[in-house]
Amino acid sequence: MKKINIAIIGFGTVGSGLHALIEKNSAVITKRSGIEIAIKTICDIRVEHVKKHTTGIGITGDWEEVARDPDIDIVVELIGGIEPAKSIIRTALQSGKGVVTANKKLLAEEGADIFKLSGSGAARLGFEASVGGGIPCILALRHGLVGNRIKSIMGILNGTTNYILTKMQEGGIPFPAALADAQAKGFAEADASFDIEGYDAGHKIALLSMIAFNKTVSYSDVTIEGISNINTRDISYARDMGYVIKLLGIAKETDGGIDIRVHPTMIPEGHPLASVRHEYNSVMIDGDMTDPVILTGKGAGARPAASALISDIVQLSSGGFGSASAVVTDGRARHVRPGKRISRYYIRMQTDDRPGILAQIAGVLAQHDISISSVIQKEIHPEYVPLIFMTHEAEESGMLGALRDIKKFDFIHGEVMMIRVEDSLHAGGEE
Amino acid sequence: MKKINIAIIGFGTVGSGLHALIEKNSAVITKRSGIEIAIKTICDIRVEHVKKHTTGIGITGDWEEVARDPDIDIVVELIGGIEPAKSIIRTALQSGKGVVTANKKLLAEEGADIFKLSGSGAARLGFEASVGGGIPCILALRHGLVGNRIKSIMGILNGTTNYILTKMQEGGIPFPAALADAQAKGFAEADASFDIEGYDAGHKIALLSMIAFNKTVSYSDVTIEGISNINTRDISYARDMGYVIKLLGIAKETDGGIDIRVHPTMIPEGHPLASVRHEYNSVMIDGDMTDPVILTGKGAGARPAASALISDIVQLSSGGFGSASAVVTDGRARHVRPGKRISRYYIRMQTDDRPGILAQIAGVLAQHDISISSVIQKEIHPEYVPLIFMTHEAEESGMLGALRDIKKFDFIHGEVMMIRVEDSLHAGGEE
Repeated sequence: MKKINIAIIGFGTVGSGLHALIEKNSAVITKRSGIEIAIKTICDIRVEHVKKHTTGIGITGDWEEVARDPDIDIVVELIGGIEPAKSIIRTALQSGKGVVTANKKLLAEEGADIFKLSGSGAARLGFEASVGGGIPCILALRHGLVGNRIKSIMGILNGTTNYILTKMQEGGIPFPAALADAQAKGFAEADASFDIEGYDAGHKIALLSMIAFNKTVSYSDVTIEGISNINTRDISYARDMGYVIKLLGIAKETDGGIDIRVHPTMIPEGHPLASVRHEYNSVMIDGDMTDPVILTGKGAGARPAASALISDIVQLSSGGFGSASAVVTDGRARHVRPGKRISRYYIRMQTDDRPGILAQIAGVLAQHDISISSVIQKEIHPEYVPLIFMTHEAEESGMLGALRDIKKFDFIHGEVMMIRVEDSLHAGGEE
Repeated sequence: MKKINIAIIGFGTVGSGLHALIEKNSAVITKRSGIEIAIKTICDIRVEHVKKHTTGIGITGDWEEVARDPDIDIVVELIGGIEPAKSIIRTALQSGKGVVTANKKLLAEEGADIFKLSGSGAARLGFEASVGGGIPCILALRHGLVGNRIKSIMGILNGTTNYILTKMQEGGIPFPAALADAQAKGFAEADASFDIEGYDAGHKIALLSMIAFNKTVSYSDVTIEGISNINTRDISYARDMGYVIKLLGIAKETDGGIDIRVHPTMIPEGHPLASVRHEYNSVMIDGDMTDPVILTGKGAGARPAASALISDIVQLSSGGFGSASAVVTDGRARHVRPGKRISRYYIRMQTDDRPGILAQIAGVLAQHDISISSVIQKEIHPEYVPLIFMTHEAEESGMLGALRDIKKFDFIHGEVMMIRVEDSLHAGGEE
């Protein structure tokens, strides 16, 4: 048996969840792994708060002391954000310690710097808890699929937005009410904009892309669009056509470079991600050997996150990880130019009810080289006619140009809604 | 960089798939893991066949020589079955080599012996390819969820039967035609009985149970029932009630002992396993920290299996696995007595159309302590009345006793069909 001393820096929800997990399940962990995990120190500026909730553990407010303590084998960084998290991780790695972190923002935005510091000895880095909560998706990607070239990743990476979209989809509830419900149930924070606007999912897909493609990703080149524009009308039209709207993180290697984005996406109702409901997350990894592998589970919460941290602690302790510097062996990714992205599109507009309009809109689409897959003209609106197009695959620049032109017509009323459509990659959906 | 010499014993579909994967993706594997995998020897009695398909690799028909060769780091055993596979694995482990195998039959039936031989040094054992093809489910269970007490596992563990049930469900095709279709498409062997009767899934759930509960399982105590009795009528009635029929492997720890079984199971159509179609497999692991985690992907085929073998080879080479002897630390499992198992049940029978019959059947169920959840009397059959009961949870002994008594009634015609129902564990299905 091997005893591993850890320090937890940041004793919030996840930190206290990790403490509770070790209290409860340490016997089973030791039995399976041969490793006994002892919390030597908890570092938090709220020293009295930690004292109240723990016994027999050193408590300090000074992270530097912890990150250099020769008796600590692994530092668990749980304060989040850029600084002082980055300094903590750097100091601990440079002191030869393993580091386990849930800090997706830091790794997505400055991963290149951090991964470089992680060496091949004890100074290694685990970050399972940074994506997908209790779902072992980083383990699957780094280790389980190590023999695969990864073709693409698609995922529901944020539980708050998936909860809201599920409520809108299944209950016909408009966005503000669904958001309020998510806040009341604890699935959304009081200021939910970080989740709602897609930034959280953006960090996660950027990080997954680095692991999948072994390149440093530029976070500012990730296209991010949230769900606050989604309304129940589009959800209902999507349903009529056999589609569901989900907020997806998508990463693909294309001829023009890496294409990484987060946006509301229409997927067929038989798609494996379509049936992932409420606060659940799901990551679909398409490997050249495995074909799609899908991992689904709770993407947030203290207990799932603690489970992921333990997985990393055990891996680091048993020498199991390759160096995190191997995550980004191939330098900086070339990002596809946004206008060059290929997608199918759903567009919805409201027009006057008179002859010739359909022909004019179809003409604009044709000018921009966009081929129409189907048109639906709804007759349910009292004043204006809702008109919906589904297109074949087209470049984004063409689509945006067409939208600009369409909006100029005087017979168009209100917004013109555009939602991207993905219907590739059905696990078990093809024969 | 570390060079690892492997030997492949058994150059069939999976063995040649592994050879092809290494030829194609070795650069990406080395980059990510720091490990260069070299095939030193291929062992197969069809020496000429191997010669035709490889170059620059030693070829032999003598496994003993390979299993003792001091230049081999890892032996990949792919011949399957009990002997000589068991002797090969034993010899290789005793010679201090790592062993990677896809041999679910051997591990399920004699895992206790094999796991004991696996030590903490180089003589370790990887068996990812034995369950779920390219899905990294054993990695998830042994490592990703190492901090969890596992409450239960439920899985679609056999692609052949899932393909057949999908065809029956979606195409209304009877069992024999669906089987013929699976055989024509290469998803079922000419003699498909090993898959159809549930034995393959039985091996897999037995092996998963050992990892989950850290106990040796007695394979002969696993209840196994196949799908050859399932007909389109029951599939259609199930659909009317919002259920889908899947062949599931189920393992739970109960008060009466470990409950492990394979049988056709009715699950609600919103259940995460319900939407897993065709040849796909899916494993749902319920951990006390994570809650359900579901892994889905292709469960068979040369390329997915090769991906799993590579994952093991890399893990063993980088020192990542705990000893396989840690898989079964807690001795022999106590199996629940079959009659004591708790389940809900669907029962369907055909009766004469006269008064009092429903009362008599309900009376028998009550005598056996079985409470009825719903009754449906179908009026579509020309001669007999189809009568369907859904029960609440009841002990299996009670259910079987009731079935015996019901079959004695002279107003019952033909078989009385019983299918177990599972509606717990909806990922995202509850709030």
